[in-house]
Amino acid sequence: MIQITNPDRSQWEEILKRPVMNTENLFDTVRSIIEHVQAEGDHAILEYEEKFDRVTLASLAVSDEELAEAEILVSEDLKAAIRLAKRNIEAFHVSQRFEGKKVETQSGIFCWQKAVAIEKVGLYIPGGTAPLFSTVLMLAVPAGIAGCREIVLCTPPGKDGKVHPAILFAAKVAGINHIVKAGGVQAIAAMAYGTESVPKVYKIFGPGNQYVMAAKQLVSLRDVAIDMPAGPSEVEVLADETANPVFVAADLLSQAEHGVDSQALLITTSARLRQMVKEEVERQLAVLPRKEIAEKSLAGSKLIVVRDMAEAIELTNTYAPEHLIIEAADYMSVAEKIVNAGSVFLGSLSPESAGDYASGTNHTLPTNGYAKAYSGVSLDSFVRKITFQEICPEGMRNIGPSIEVMAASEHLDAHKNAVTVRLKSL
Amino acid sequence: MIQITNPDRSQWEEILKRPVMNTENLFDTVRSIIEHVQAEGDHAILEYEEKFDRVTLASLAVSDEELAEAEILVSEDLKAAIRLAKRNIEAFHVSQRFEGKKVETQSGIFCWQKAVAIEKVGLYIPGGTAPLFSTVLMLAVPAGIAGCREIVLCTPPGKDGKVHPAILFAAKVAGINHIVKAGGVQAIAAMAYGTESVPKVYKIFGPGNQYVMAAKQLVSLRDVAIDMPAGPSEVEVLADETANPVFVAADLLSQAEHGVDSQALLITTSARLRQMVKEEVERQLAVLPRKEIAEKSLAGSKLIVVRDMAEAIELTNTYAPEHLIIEAADYMSVAEKIVNAGSVFLGSLSPESAGDYASGTNHTLPTNGYAKAYSGVSLDSFVRKITFQEICPEGMRNIGPSIEVMAASEHLDAHKNAVTVRLKSL
Repeated sequence: MIQITNPDRSQWEEILKRPVMNTENLFDTVRSIIEHVQAEGDHAILEYEEKFDRVTLASLAVSDEELAEAEILVSEDLKAAIRLAKRNIEAFHVSQRFEGKKVETQSGIFCWQKAVAIEKVGLYIPGGTAPLFSTVLMLAVPAGIAGCREIVLCTPPGKDGKVHPAILFAAKVAGINHIVKAGGVQAIAAMAYGTESVPKVYKIFGPGNQYVMAAKQLVSLRDVAIDMPAGPSEVEVLADETANPVFVAADLLSQAEHGVDSQALLITTSARLRQMVKEEVERQLAVLPRKEIAEKSLAGSKLIVVRDMAEAIELTNTYAPEHLIIEAADYMSVAEKIVNAGSVFLGSLSPESAGDYASGTNHTLPTNGYAKAYSGVSLDSFVRKITFQEICPEGMRNIGPSIEVMAASEHLDAHKNAVTVRLKSL
Repeated sequence: MIQITNPDRSQWEEILKRPVMNTENLFDTVRSIIEHVQAEGDHAILEYEEKFDRVTLASLAVSDEELAEAEILVSEDLKAAIRLAKRNIEAFHVSQRFEGKKVETQSGIFCWQKAVAIEKVGLYIPGGTAPLFSTVLMLAVPAGIAGCREIVLCTPPGKDGKVHPAILFAAKVAGINHIVKAGGVQAIAAMAYGTESVPKVYKIFGPGNQYVMAAKQLVSLRDVAIDMPAGPSEVEVLADETANPVFVAADLLSQAEHGVDSQALLITTSARLRQMVKEEVERQLAVLPRKEIAEKSLAGSKLIVVRDMAEAIELTNTYAPEHLIIEAADYMSVAEKIVNAGSVFLGSLSPESAGDYASGTNHTLPTNGYAKAYSGVSLDSFVRKITFQEICPEGMRNIGPSIEVMAASEHLDAHKNAVTVRLKSL
């Protein structure tokens, strides 16, 4: 871990620098896979599953037997936990339902917004060592609340040709029944363009490796929307001298174990806390199963001591962390000054793990500084707000002449005429 | 205009096909301009203004004299119209302010969202024959309401080196005082990366030609967010036999005059109405100043008669028009069934021109079928919703064990430990 003390403002940019990602470099590779899936459909997916996931599939569909089997294989403890998480995610996302207000902007002119679900969405759940059933809940639950008519979930099978039972169970709990065994670029291509087994969707959600990200970005240039661009996961702990070093160390480690490129940052007003955190990290790291990954990730992580809380807050807003944990005496007043972050965890009993799994907030969040411009996934991500307007005779009389003047000034006479013919009819 | 009657469902895709855009083809051209601006800053912008806009500028800044002069040059009529439009846009967008609800998802667990303005935004206003002061209002007014701290507006100057006075006046009315004389790809590059005169922003808004669009898409792959992808403007009029053919014709023409690639579509249940609209279009077209543009655009436009209103609605939702005007007897019940559209205009007195200029709704809308996945610009576009959570001891006791089970199942032991150390402390 790199220790930095009272850095000069001129050093901030360098200190906060993230690894540069350049998914554009992968576009050529990714494009050829996408085009093959566009041309050959399911056949191409089966081919790529054999090539990349080393599995020969008879069918891309998850069978009813597999679903039934999953229910038996998942432990009762985990089932109960998944159900609890689902309830909390549901409670928070239901509260985000949008009710448009009808506004009379001027006498006789009524304008309003209405939230309408995106009809077809695709959810991507990566494979790999850990079965990300939590991400299934984070995407499928709000999609269901929004009322998306068609929800397809793509996830790569294991070498046995099966999808991890916890993923299947989470999908069932979240009400998803269209699950396709497809991973990587081929899955993104299938959802973007449609194949025999996979419907074409309008928006694709979910994490993935750099190839998946490149594929999402490439298809988003022309064909479908995506949730957001993404980079390696990251956490910042903002702490004062009252923070518990055991908790802070655990929080930094819980990010570091994600991957070697994960970012863990401590910004604190207390040099003493930093020293204690440093020692505690070593202690906890020693017994961690994913020690090797965490060690590599920690090598690049920074423990920064700053002069005061005001500077800590400014540095935080400059960094714009995906996850921000505030462990400080007056965490509420600190939180009020945070303007750039994905999700904020307040006080000593709100670890990132809570939001990752079960408190109710979404864990699909903007990384890589994208929090400066993007929100995390929420119910909003699954709807569009369509605007409506109704103009009555009085309203047309009120704004008609102004529209005529403006349209004429923009040299758009047909625009003007659309009003003129109506004013004449009144 | 192409007349189609009772098309078979198998023909729908072909009928509704839009011109294919491929901004990727322009990436190489656009990338070299962006890189030059990144390397040379203002100097590169001045060079490109000379090359592309044929203007030699002493400074990129709009001077106070130019601002004062603009106020004199704009007619009182237009000033009053701009002020009226601004008030209505403000009224509608103020009503969109978001108040997050604090939700207790489970006893002792509090989650909420808070809307925070994007700190730095860039607005692009194209040059060309028509001064798009209306777009200035549509972007700058919500940016101001959101509370964006830094708002920069880039627009190319005319050959006299000046920005159109109506644009400067609209910017003033909307509270923008940072205006830069820069157009095209060089303006997008400047806002994405910053130069001596142009601050680096986090999100770029505004229309433009295909090069501007390509530049926006390219910078969005890595550096900044953009409002949305865009294509040629389009309108659909959905009408029954009660519609006024004079109004319908005027509405189709007001889209057709935008550009030769604009799309105007009539979907109607009445063959008689179609015939009358066709004749009326010819009549109105004859006296239109932008007749030549409208004529070319109309050559590709379609007048479609369908069997009944249910089919008309389905065809409309399949097309997903940017603007949808519903001129039908029971327009409200038709509107309720619309799920894919950018902005909907209801009844005979709500022409697209109203929303383009002055009713209050935003005119920056998803074209090219993007309405299936994207919303138009609204107050939401200028904020992020940050999630917050605060967990009390009771809450941690309630969800802690479930988080431990889930984290362990995802093989993330440090995630589990962040909860374990806290549960132990209680």
